[in-house]
Amino acid sequence: MSFQEISPSDFFYRNRDLAGFSNPSRALYSALRELVENSLDACDSYGILPEIYIKISQADNSTSDIREYELSVQDNGIGMPDDKIPMALGKVFYGTKFGLKQARGTFGMGATMSVLYAQITTNKPVCIDSSQDGVSYSHYELFIDIERNKPIIINHSVTSASGWRGTRVRMNLVGDYMRSATKVKEYIKRVAIVTPYANILFIDPTGEVFMYRRTTTVIPPAPVEVKPHPKGVDLEMVRRMVRVWKKGNMVSFLTKNFHRVGKKTAISFLQYAGIDPNTDPRSLTHDDLVKLESALRNYDKFLPPDASCLSPIGRDLLMEGIRKELNPEFIDALTRTPLSYEGYPFIIEVAVSYENRDGGMRLFRYANRIPLLYDEGNDVAYRVLNEEIDWKRYHLTTDDPVTVITHICSTKVPYKTMGKEYVADRPEVEREIRNALRIVLRSLSIFINRKSRMEVVKKKQNIYRKYLPLIARFSSDLAERRIPDVNKLISMGEEEVEIQERVDGQET
Amino acid sequence: MSFQEISPSDFFYRNRDLAGFSNPSRALYSALRELVENSLDACDSYGILPEIYIKISQADNSTSDIREYELSVQDNGIGMPDDKIPMALGKVFYGTKFGLKQARGTFGMGATMSVLYAQITTNKPVCIDSSQDGVSYSHYELFIDIERNKPIIINHSVTSASGWRGTRVRMNLVGDYMRSATKVKEYIKRVAIVTPYANILFIDPTGEVFMYRRTTTVIPPAPVEVKPHPKGVDLEMVRRMVRVWKKGNMVSFLTKNFHRVGKKTAISFLQYAGIDPNTDPRSLTHDDLVKLESALRNYDKFLPPDASCLSPIGRDLLMEGIRKELNPEFIDALTRTPLSYEGYPFIIEVAVSYENRDGGMRLFRYANRIPLLYDEGNDVAYRVLNEEIDWKRYHLTTDDPVTVITHICSTKVPYKTMGKEYVADRPEVEREIRNALRIVLRSLSIFINRKSRMEVVKKKQNIYRKYLPLIARFSSDLAERRIPDVNKLISMGEEEVEIQERVDGQET
Repeated sequence: MSFQEISPSDFFYRNRDLAGFSNPSRALYSALRELVENSLDACDSYGILPEIYIKISQADNSTSDIREYELSVQDNGIGMPDDKIPMALGKVFYGTKFGLKQARGTFGMGATMSVLYAQITTNKPVCIDSSQDGVSYSHYELFIDIERNKPIIINHSVTSASGWRGTRVRMNLVGDYMRSATKVKEYIKRVAIVTPYANILFIDPTGEVFMYRRTTTVIPPAPVEVKPHPKGVDLEMVRRMVRVWKKGNMVSFLTKNFHRVGKKTAISFLQYAGIDPNTDPRSLTHDDLVKLESALRNYDKFLPPDASCLSPIGRDLLMEGIRKELNPEFIDALTRTPLSYEGYPFIIEVAVSYENRDGGMRLFRYANRIPLLYDEGNDVAYRVLNEEIDWKRYHLTTDDPVTVITHICSTKVPYKTMGKEYVADRPEVEREIRNALRIVLRSLSIFINRKSRMEVVKKKQNIYRKYLPLIARFSSDLAERRIPDVNKLISMGEEEVEIQERVDGQET
Repeated sequence: MSFQEISPSDFFYRNRDLAGFSNPSRALYSALRELVENSLDACDSYGILPEIYIKISQADNSTSDIREYELSVQDNGIGMPDDKIPMALGKVFYGTKFGLKQARGTFGMGATMSVLYAQITTNKPVCIDSSQDGVSYSHYELFIDIERNKPIIINHSVTSASGWRGTRVRMNLVGDYMRSATKVKEYIKRVAIVTPYANILFIDPTGEVFMYRRTTTVIPPAPVEVKPHPKGVDLEMVRRMVRVWKKGNMVSFLTKNFHRVGKKTAISFLQYAGIDPNTDPRSLTHDDLVKLESALRNYDKFLPPDASCLSPIGRDLLMEGIRKELNPEFIDALTRTPLSYEGYPFIIEVAVSYENRDGGMRLFRYANRIPLLYDEGNDVAYRVLNEEIDWKRYHLTTDDPVTVITHICSTKVPYKTMGKEYVADRPEVEREIRNALRIVLRSLSIFINRKSRMEVVKKKQNIYRKYLPLIARFSSDLAERRIPDVNKLISMGEEEVEIQERVDGQET
């Protein structure tokens, strides 16, 4: 029996499957998405219209499917301070994603995992260029010392940036583009759908160019970091708050540390908890802390978490993105009002679009504005769509060219894996998705109804159009009168449909 | 933008869903299983017949479903050295499970995660008693300093053990036994099925006692730790080997570091790789290492990993366990020959049993002798069973009272989550499960066939039994002869079935 300590880098090096780096095809996809998601966060979270440039090119002469590729992702985001770059990319569990804030990155380790994977498959350093001000930029080449979980700097220079601001990460890694191409392209396309305010350029190893141009300059408001909601606390959290508490009584302790707790709420809560408002938090014993924590979780008069910290895409932008990329015949979208699970606020957005294409129904899942492509069958949205929606009610079958889009945004998306593949079942989330889908599907079904009625009318009109003029002419000849205008008669069918729709509308 | 470093403890504290601690019901189940799995590893991996004692009792006066429970798991295993105990339970990424060896624990963090969860929900220390020799035992009470990822020792003493050897871990945690009871009981039962050589006693919070007695003293041979197979290497691994290499040329470097590489294999490989056998490994440049690693992965004449390091349950023990716990009418089991994926050896075992019970087909999944209960639908075994097996071919429907058992043992089970819920699709594993299942199902189908034919015969016999004696008597009366013995005639039907079976047997 030998005991051993391993570093966080070492743990993930040994268990890279857990983070989505299980094989060369999956790893190439994961590395690309992690870098793209960081790049987008570095832009739109700071109000910058994203310009993202992604390139994968072959880096060896191999002819087998599994080859060495160079992956490069560049953005025009806020850049990183020179001294933070090595740690941000060369140390697991170091980063900017550990606050309570909506962000594409969640675990704060995606980029580092990519660097780690690149290094162990090619033994080449990662290259980072970053500028915060457009005046000077930092260039780094580094490895990760996996056993010690820290960066090894091979090269470092600071040069004049001549106006360019942003970050570029370039790495060589063993991948299998043949097998990941479909997912990679689909991923970028789906990113474009929910970020219609971004320019995204992707050049694949065959030299093919995919350009997604922005059609709007509206960026959703940037998410802000929030204090924890009392419903979501645990003892460790309370203990930490007490440990760093400088000065003030329980009332100010509560109002300063918790989300949406004002003076009045704090005082009523303390009364409920049987704690003297004038207590110094630092004087609380372990038992007091246990009591306090339990009271915080059980008190039911706290205001629900507010969602000003969240940044949904919004109905207009969502519809804009769908219109731009899917070119649908019909489209509807919906942003629900905020709710919460376990003290974390979340918002559900859904959209449906009906396209003129072959193939049946598709589900596009999003979480904090990133597309989720793998493990669809495990996702709560998939379950709702396939088990809880009665398609017949909406005059739909799974063969219809319908795209359903679901988006959850939250300060904490309940992912079930570190690879961010799918969202876990939480009753609150499930219910919201179901209710939201029913509303947009209802609106889609009215369209479908109208569409199929219009088709019947069109058929009738075609017959009328063919025979009515003849009948009119013959009748006029017989009656020796002028030929009447039959066009009004032909278009009457359309009015019928509209009247019927108004009746249907009143029924609901 | 604020950069921050968090400790491994802190990471898992923030993301405890990832390790199976997502809610009070799930967490109670996860804590129990992690402790039980450690206990079993501490026994049978060292040839000790396990005596496991598990107790959950209510620890507060709450009447809500979510309550504080005391969970205690005790074993008679090899115990832990006094000085290692605090780290083993109070530090994430410290343990004995980081070698290449079949073990129930995989990520080496289950017990620590349980301690962490217990602490943040009750703020009480975990208590550990452990003795390696039965002479003295260590008692510890400790917390985890989550921000620093290290144990805080509250109490420590060494006392006379008066003969007791083993480990007991006791912790208070918030759980929901109401909701986890079914899973917990099912878990323990399924453990009993694959460890028929263990005594397991479980007392639940209501005081109900579940006793699983051993029916055999045969323990599968203990797994041994192995060197990595050349097919499974990466650059980091090769680099580490070189770094710690003391003395010797490439031939001894290869034979000493890799699984199943002898002198002859090493020399042929080096010729293939174009490396001089007399090279000192420490003189290899980065480029040489890249070349070496790539050659190791691509050389196709290495011997496959051998499975002496694995410890399957074995056909006899598996059938013994099923017989003992499921009391089946029919049972068959199979241990396949070892194979490998990505350089990791694995063995598939399967069993089927036909029981006299209500309810249809069940799947019991195991990996390295632990039952997997959650997320069945994502498991490779579930997929094979539901998508690749044509039940009609085996005269079976999903309504039949059949239990299918699948077991994968490997130095590295391809789990997809840290909570060890399900095994990922690997083509090699999938194929093995499918082939193994077909064999045992064939044998089950012969039984089913015989069973249904016997039922027809029984029906006939019942009719014969009723009327033949009468006919015999009447005929004898008429013929004025002695009444003949009709029993031989009645049992003739059974022979028919047997003859038919022999014919069927030859067909296959």
